[in-house]
Amino acid sequence: MTKFGIAIFPSKKLQDLANSYRKRYDPHYSLIPPHITVKNAFEATDEEIAAISSKLKQVGEKTKPFTLRAYKISSFQPVNNVIYMKVDTTPELLALHEALHTEDLGGAPELSFVPHITVAQKLSDDEHSDVYGSLRMAGINFEETVDRFHLLYQLENGSWTVYETFRLGSEK
Amino acid sequence: MTKFGIAIFPSKKLQDLANSYRKRYDPHYSLIPPHITVKNAFEATDEEIAAISSKLKQVGEKTKPFTLRAYKISSFQPVNNVIYMKVDTTPELLALHEALHTEDLGGAPELSFVPHITVAQKLSDDEHSDVYGSLRMAGINFEETVDRFHLLYQLENGSWTVYETFRLGSEK
Repeated sequence: MTKFGIAIFPSKKLQDLANSYRKRYDPHYSLIPPHITVKNAFEATDEEIAAISSKLKQVGEKTKPFTLRAYKISSFQPVNNVIYMKVDTTPELLALHEALHTEDLGGAPELSFVPHITVAQKLSDDEHSDVYGSLRMAGINFEETVDRFHLLYQLENGSWTVYETFRLGSEK
Repeated sequence: MTKFGIAIFPSKKLQDLANSYRKRYDPHYSLIPPHITVKNAFEATDEEIAAISSKLKQVGEKTKPFTLRAYKISSFQPVNNVIYMKVDTTPELLALHEALHTEDLGGAPELSFVPHITVAQKLSDDEHSDVYGSLRMAGINFEETVDRFHLLYQLENGSWTVYETFRLGSEK
């Protein structure tokens, strides 16, 4: 069994900004580029992933490219000390998330979907309040087009390798 | 301008083995998963990469999945102190490499193609001879099927994000 997950990588510009924070405040900095998780980690065999892959291709073809807006810095506190760039919950993003959680793709997620790009985690309470304060002051306001998502798998060392990219919109 | 490159990721098993060496001996360990470079870094604008992308899709469709064999540990010394898993230069791999270096994709590469998976680099001469000795003793013998390649771009911090995956063989 291999552990898979599905993510959207924002533009290089937004990734570079996120990394400038993650470098100092996110221990997962070197394991995966800045991303929006659209389906949490799940286990699958090689045979299962081939079937899942063709379903994801269909999801990609049926989904149109859409606008992603990252518009403020927020935190999951008191649940945990994760600081993130809040991503607008547009109908398109919700629809994609839903299409990735149909019965034949493992069903509904355990938690409601809060689209975000993590920039800091595993901070102490004091660090959290310092970092949260300064990042909120810096703020954020990005708008860009999402035209693809990626299926990734996790290596032994915890890092993620892309297995396949799915373009949004019908095949040209 | 963004810096792009094209690579094949070997199986998770082979990546995990490569990483067990890279963790200690390769400063690029956290920047990119273990890979075989099939086209060195090149610069392109957003517009150029869209055109390149559709050419790569065609290359993928025209290339059949092929067998990749990593069969011994070797070194580029005296050119440099890079230790790598030597990958068999099969006609299929050479053909893919050639298809990625046509005139409309920037032309022939500067150096002849030595397919490999780097596991150690930037070692001192003494480290190199120690590490090379022990890795050669450990040896390697992997055979697996390659059915995709990836176009990646480099972030400010030197790490690589996958832009798109190209499956080998005609579309299903």
